[in-house]
Amino acid sequence: MRGAFKAAGFLRAQVAKDAFAGKLPGQWSCRALFSQMQLPEQSKEGKVLHPDLLNNDLLETKYAVRGEIYLKAEELRQTGKEVTFTNIGNPQALGQSPITFYRQVLALCAAPFLLNHPDVGKLFPSDAIARAKHYVDGIPGGVGAYSDSRGNGLLRKEVAAFIERRDGHPSNPDNIFLTDGASVAVRLCLNALIRSRQDGLLCPIPQYPLYSAGVQLYGGTLVGYELDEAQGWGMSTELLKSCVEKAKKEGVLCRGLVFINPGNPTGQVLTADNLKEVIKFAYDEKLVLMADEVYQENIYAAGSSFVSAKKVLMEMGAPYADNVELLSFHTVSKGMIGECGLRGGYVEMTNIHPGAIDQLYKISSLNLCPNLLGQIVTAMMCNPPQPGDESYEQFYKEKNGTYESMKRRAKMLIDGFNKLDGIECNDTEGAMYAFPSLVLPPKALAAAAADGRSADEFYCLALLADTGIVTVPGCGFGQVEGTYHFRTTILPKEEKMPEVVAKFSDFHKKFMAQYS
Amino acid sequence: MRGAFKAAGFLRAQVAKDAFAGKLPGQWSCRALFSQMQLPEQSKEGKVLHPDLLNNDLLETKYAVRGEIYLKAEELRQTGKEVTFTNIGNPQALGQSPITFYRQVLALCAAPFLLNHPDVGKLFPSDAIARAKHYVDGIPGGVGAYSDSRGNGLLRKEVAAFIERRDGHPSNPDNIFLTDGASVAVRLCLNALIRSRQDGLLCPIPQYPLYSAGVQLYGGTLVGYELDEAQGWGMSTELLKSCVEKAKKEGVLCRGLVFINPGNPTGQVLTADNLKEVIKFAYDEKLVLMADEVYQENIYAAGSSFVSAKKVLMEMGAPYADNVELLSFHTVSKGMIGECGLRGGYVEMTNIHPGAIDQLYKISSLNLCPNLLGQIVTAMMCNPPQPGDESYEQFYKEKNGTYESMKRRAKMLIDGFNKLDGIECNDTEGAMYAFPSLVLPPKALAAAAADGRSADEFYCLALLADTGIVTVPGCGFGQVEGTYHFRTTILPKEEKMPEVVAKFSDFHKKFMAQYS
Repeated sequence: MRGAFKAAGFLRAQVAKDAFAGKLPGQWSCRALFSQMQLPEQSKEGKVLHPDLLNNDLLETKYAVRGEIYLKAEELRQTGKEVTFTNIGNPQALGQSPITFYRQVLALCAAPFLLNHPDVGKLFPSDAIARAKHYVDGIPGGVGAYSDSRGNGLLRKEVAAFIERRDGHPSNPDNIFLTDGASVAVRLCLNALIRSRQDGLLCPIPQYPLYSAGVQLYGGTLVGYELDEAQGWGMSTELLKSCVEKAKKEGVLCRGLVFINPGNPTGQVLTADNLKEVIKFAYDEKLVLMADEVYQENIYAAGSSFVSAKKVLMEMGAPYADNVELLSFHTVSKGMIGECGLRGGYVEMTNIHPGAIDQLYKISSLNLCPNLLGQIVTAMMCNPPQPGDESYEQFYKEKNGTYESMKRRAKMLIDGFNKLDGIECNDTEGAMYAFPSLVLPPKALAAAAADGRSADEFYCLALLADTGIVTVPGCGFGQVEGTYHFRTTILPKEEKMPEVVAKFSDFHKKFMAQYS
Repeated sequence: MRGAFKAAGFLRAQVAKDAFAGKLPGQWSCRALFSQMQLPEQSKEGKVLHPDLLNNDLLETKYAVRGEIYLKAEELRQTGKEVTFTNIGNPQALGQSPITFYRQVLALCAAPFLLNHPDVGKLFPSDAIARAKHYVDGIPGGVGAYSDSRGNGLLRKEVAAFIERRDGHPSNPDNIFLTDGASVAVRLCLNALIRSRQDGLLCPIPQYPLYSAGVQLYGGTLVGYELDEAQGWGMSTELLKSCVEKAKKEGVLCRGLVFINPGNPTGQVLTADNLKEVIKFAYDEKLVLMADEVYQENIYAAGSSFVSAKKVLMEMGAPYADNVELLSFHTVSKGMIGECGLRGGYVEMTNIHPGAIDQLYKISSLNLCPNLLGQIVTAMMCNPPQPGDESYEQFYKEKNGTYESMKRRAKMLIDGFNKLDGIECNDTEGAMYAFPSLVLPPKALAAAAADGRSADEFYCLALLADTGIVTVPGCGFGQVEGTYHFRTTILPKEEKMPEVVAKFSDFHKKFMAQYS
């Protein structure tokens, strides 16, 4: 019989026609909505998954950090050219060593049978062994079992304890979701927040393009608010207010406000007073605050320090402290840990409706759980070795060594930029990037236009071809029209930094000479 | 000045009003589409993230595997009651040991400095050391660096080599994306495929609800095709054809066809002839095939063996082999490895348009990369120890021991079910589940209705309350109307299985007596 399947010794000759009974089954049925409508386009050149026939929001999504220039750089690298990837904050790819204690604990959690080996003490310090035992005991089934979709409870408690110590205010582990990196947490929240193109998200311009990409992918509208480069990338509630009003006139209601502190790509650090204004604004306008605080450990400017949005919010008292909806994101990929490849991060939700948290929990469960080793690193970031522990001295030396070096590297790079005609660069107060402004001669602009590119993209491609240095053009982050920038990390190894600065300088001078 | 921020020593007194210049900046601007439209609802009880005001597709998404019963079970567990989680294929949570070799290699990749330790040979066998060196050398920056968003190139080559050996046909690593578990890969593909409610996805009923959830979340229409329980959960192209036609009449165009082989929750194994029919059908109807092959190692029925859709497709020759679009999914979470918590999986894309692959690559890059240790386990699953290697004997013993035990446990459970009045259960030819059918007395149906629940949900809740056994009711997977089922894994430890079977039996008899 045509169309009938035989499997496992049965002759499946009887098609259960009556099971189909003239309609699709119960809750799974097609909707009658589209009767009489034209069918959508199905196939082009014989393909269903044709690039012209995919989900339109997905097609329109842009993500420059790993865009065309990165792909060209990968090609170059494969031809044997020396390529320096400063397009992305990926410290270990450029030679930063992981923190030994964290990796020792991870190794023992991955191979817990080693804990019973008589020689384990020869390879691992006592505090790493004790910590691994602590996690192995607290994770039912070990790292090979799915955990709760929000992350393991013990590990979430360690994150909550860290937040409490940091801020001096309570943190509830049930309001913390561990995720495979902060990006996953951001996407989850955006997916819940955005209902249609009429929902707007206020995002800084320039911004890390995860936000613009997420807003596009989930079908919302990005409402950009420009940071003021002349004022060290400052933000202003007056400008925010006019953005909200303008959006409203166009039928778009702003539902959330993203800020990145310390800034990416812009490196500015917000003060408690800045944050208070933002929080008041969010309260007045009924906006969910999305606080991207993944660079909270990366503060270099003298006199600057990180203060969390949660702490400021809690200290503002009523009506703010118990009303303003706040989502705060953190990660193991940044700081001095730089464990990008392990994929660990979290979101803490403050003043979020329990019913909304339940919905996020449900959607998290589609992926079952974040990876357990990433969860453990996240907990360890929040619960590092303490003075007196066997590993403390080495831990401190490693972490502080990286920190001091990052600070020096940021200065070297920015001083280098500011020596050049046609480049101006604000200080990197925090984070891992420099975002210099390019003032390019008209001939360069004309050449870029002739090439069908924005001038900064044109510049970055020329930089790559000449030096092998991979950067991201400012257009990938958004920038005030008529201005041009690029982002580079401060992460090349310190001993290589003079060479990187020299390469930048030589290239820039050549480029300017060529087009002047 | 109100609304102006001070940061890092600057007085940000000047609001760059002109930068705003009466419109939102360039590419980031709001769309004018919504002028004159009514603004969407913003806030309820003062909340933006209110459960009534979230993304509607997200709200409507259902995922029973971690639904209400699971949450109740977690509550019970926290009160100290012994709870047996058979709601999800999570072997290590129920005591299955990880495979030692894989964990040894992982530990060394997590702590590569151990490779230089003089005593490393005391804790690790030589082949684990050699394998770890191989991966450490092949992963630039190590496991703490972001890899390519598709996964590391060396690891993808090992996956491709496995597919080539398995199928006898070439596999291109550039068509393989590593992901944080297969679910992420499935969601990525669904997101690209589905454009609107008018796009349909053919899914088996019953089915693992990731598919129904994904279709809902990405805004498409699920077109269910029922499997025939009386014929060992067989599928039929006649039924598929009528589903496609019926959907078309309702304005829904089917773009993809999901099948799960071996079946979840249904356990059937498809033959090469079955697969040929499905492939021909996909060719005729222009459907992307989504082959969920995550249980390919879990085959228990005598005479049954797994044959991949890719192999069958390649051997069908023109016009099928070079045309039918096929997405095949695999994972480290199932098989005899059961490394659920490490989150590793992949999709292989066959005959997919390069432009579509580029789009999936772009969207993968929003999350930067899958976790590196999960990537390594995925590669190791595809490249296990070989006869003659130091670890081979132990590896084989562990893997085969788990396999033989699973086979026995499946039989124990199903024999137990089939001894009971009011339960009928097909053999578990493959995968990790039993999906028995319940024939419940009218009084039980009435009691369930009075409780506002489907009868199978009512049964599963009673089972949980009485025995602590956590299952998933059939309504979570879809089932023919008027039939009732539940899914349980075959994963309780073998020595516990008689007790589990006895608990099931005792409860079932009590339940039937109570409502007869």
